[in-house]
Amino acid sequence: MSTETISKRGAISHGLATSVLERVATIASCTEKPGEILRTFLSPAMEEVHERMRPWLERMGMNVNVDAAGNLRAVYASDAGESSPVLIIGSHLDTVPNAGAYDGVLGVLLGLALVEGLGGRRLPYSIEIIGFSDEEGTRFGVPFLGSRLLTEMPSETSFLESRDSSGVTIRQALAKYRVGHPGVTPSIFNPKSAGYFEFHIEQGPLLESRNLSLGVVESIVGQSRCHVVFHGSAGHAGTSPMPLRRDALAAAALWITRCESIAAGGVGLVATVGQILVKPGAVNVIPGTALCSLDVRHADDAERTNAVEAMMKEARDIAAERGLGIETDEYHTQPAVRFDPEMISLAEKAVRDAGCGHIRMTSGAGHDAMVIASHLPTGMIFLRSPGGISHHPDESVLVDDVEVAIQAGLCFLDEFALFIEKRGNSPRE
Amino acid sequence: MSTETISKRGAISHGLATSVLERVATIASCTEKPGEILRTFLSPAMEEVHERMRPWLERMGMNVNVDAAGNLRAVYASDAGESSPVLIIGSHLDTVPNAGAYDGVLGVLLGLALVEGLGGRRLPYSIEIIGFSDEEGTRFGVPFLGSRLLTEMPSETSFLESRDSSGVTIRQALAKYRVGHPGVTPSIFNPKSAGYFEFHIEQGPLLESRNLSLGVVESIVGQSRCHVVFHGSAGHAGTSPMPLRRDALAAAALWITRCESIAAGGVGLVATVGQILVKPGAVNVIPGTALCSLDVRHADDAERTNAVEAMMKEARDIAAERGLGIETDEYHTQPAVRFDPEMISLAEKAVRDAGCGHIRMTSGAGHDAMVIASHLPTGMIFLRSPGGISHHPDESVLVDDVEVAIQAGLCFLDEFALFIEKRGNSPRE
Repeated sequence: MSTETISKRGAISHGLATSVLERVATIASCTEKPGEILRTFLSPAMEEVHERMRPWLERMGMNVNVDAAGNLRAVYASDAGESSPVLIIGSHLDTVPNAGAYDGVLGVLLGLALVEGLGGRRLPYSIEIIGFSDEEGTRFGVPFLGSRLLTEMPSETSFLESRDSSGVTIRQALAKYRVGHPGVTPSIFNPKSAGYFEFHIEQGPLLESRNLSLGVVESIVGQSRCHVVFHGSAGHAGTSPMPLRRDALAAAALWITRCESIAAGGVGLVATVGQILVKPGAVNVIPGTALCSLDVRHADDAERTNAVEAMMKEARDIAAERGLGIETDEYHTQPAVRFDPEMISLAEKAVRDAGCGHIRMTSGAGHDAMVIASHLPTGMIFLRSPGGISHHPDESVLVDDVEVAIQAGLCFLDEFALFIEKRGNSPRE
Repeated sequence: MSTETISKRGAISHGLATSVLERVATIASCTEKPGEILRTFLSPAMEEVHERMRPWLERMGMNVNVDAAGNLRAVYASDAGESSPVLIIGSHLDTVPNAGAYDGVLGVLLGLALVEGLGGRRLPYSIEIIGFSDEEGTRFGVPFLGSRLLTEMPSETSFLESRDSSGVTIRQALAKYRVGHPGVTPSIFNPKSAGYFEFHIEQGPLLESRNLSLGVVESIVGQSRCHVVFHGSAGHAGTSPMPLRRDALAAAALWITRCESIAAGGVGLVATVGQILVKPGAVNVIPGTALCSLDVRHADDAERTNAVEAMMKEARDIAAERGLGIETDEYHTQPAVRFDPEMISLAEKAVRDAGCGHIRMTSGAGHDAMVIASHLPTGMIFLRSPGGISHHPDESVLVDDVEVAIQAGLCFLDEFALFIEKRGNSPRE
């Protein structure tokens, strides 16, 4: 790419970045709880988001709909006719409670900024921007509802009977939404879809620690969640000599330090004990029971499985050495997702073309891209999270990082044209 | 002592031990909460205990009163006239919630058994049995009310304004009790008191681990209670690489293992982290804050103070190494109490005379003897606690241990006669 082209894109992208941040602030005002940002699946606050975004999208010549799963969908048609392939650019519009302004929304508005950055130019493929209706799972405790309702067959959707805090099932909520919104389109995947691309804030400290604006995501970690319970003997804190104790917390503490060591000894491995509960829990009573949670993540499922097994073995060994009982339970497992190698290369090339240093990285958090990756070649770019802060009102992005993301995104659109041409210009089977 | 005497005492003490255990069961039925044992300061359940015990005491020729602090007091007069010295044998009649049957009560009933074991014989000193009205502090959160109200000047009793869960102060409760019980005697210390002796269950596992019935208590540990708070950074369990974390629980866990090591490296030193609270406390969030309690005890105050300082230093060092904030607060300190060396020797000789192996030991728990020791030469003997269990409905004693305790107690009564004779037959100034 010529220096002139980069320079021109730089001028355009600066204005677009400012506009993206203004729009993020506007969307942040759409909330179902005054004083904080909260938008849940199929809520009136989400409808307000749709109504705010609709004119921004339509002004770019896009065809805007909301589908039956509450996903906002806007198509920027190709210049190659109805049968041309589709690149989906998406992220989510829902939030956690007391959220920051950028998580999800930024990716949707960056998609819009790319279309704006085309300045009316049409591509050999269509762009569909999707603002997913639920990724966080705040309302029903089931994450990724927007992308799953789009991609899974009804027979696969075992989660439809999950209930919100009012006792309403997802099935009932969807039925009510369809009745109240007769104009919704079917929540189906466009069969001409040829790729998925997502921008998202990193939600972690890695890019900041490397002084980088962007990271190319290669994979999303797999996850194991476990319960580990140490059963010792409660006893009087004064009358039990140290060698005669069976202190459940002392055992758990040793185990936590061992888990930390195992995780620190791995590459890309993280392990977190986020919860601990001791009983009876009195100042002057030796803990009889200690219940711990454990969350282990790695991009390689075998590495994660091995780490979990090593940690469970430590728990058993510590319990055996100390004469304690032990219960371990791996109650949730989610395999890692690896993105399409060609899409990773495209994203990497686009970031490089934008003149930006970068790293390839693994996402430690789940994203819509994880769901879509089973169905489409998927690429993802992270923007630096100042302070690593997310899911918090202090969440932020730097305007310069948004600008370079737009530059990279525009490069990506060009790279993607070559990609589908190479793949025979046809949708993936 | 001749073999014949021991054998005769053995026959008597077996019957007395059985009787003691029957009486313990009777007293256990006096409770303010159906289905569990609970007796608090000045409660109707405590009055019921007094009424149950009165005939048992009076039958032995004792003069029985309740004092204005709710202490049951029964005097077995000497054969040496009104001016003869007094040996107090006491323990407490109140309980923790959901208590066992033996804690406290056993010591009072063993005092009665000793008088019974005298078979009408009078001694050169009087025996006053005291059933203290409060040792556990269950009602007002202030322990040792019975012995403190007996021994402290009103000006020293800074605790009188403490309130129970209904908002009643100790001062108000005492005033009401006195109005409702016009026959109570003053809650003052008999100025002729020359010594204090207490039997109590060990409430710990040491005697059982040594296969011993009895232990001679030399001292009661001093105690420090601290709060230690680690301030790290909450963060996403997936997106924060291990080296970039400031995990408050990982730091606290390492500190707990260090505290355990320091305590295990001391002689007679115990340290307990009985409470830990992490925030935010979610499976998938790195703990940002960890609050720990710490309870440290030792019979030597300097050893305890050094241990606490070493543990606080570990906390500060760990926090500094990991870039965490730290708060430490030693919010409660209680010095150790060492019993009178001659009384320790008397108790030891008595146990030996009863044909019983024993150890000298330190009490890790507080007892009425700790309060009285500032005022009178004090001795104390522990009975083995099966399983080390106390403050629990499963609390128990072995009938054989009660029997040998009675034998030792009878020997002690004889030894004490020699002791006061040596001390000039006069009360301590």
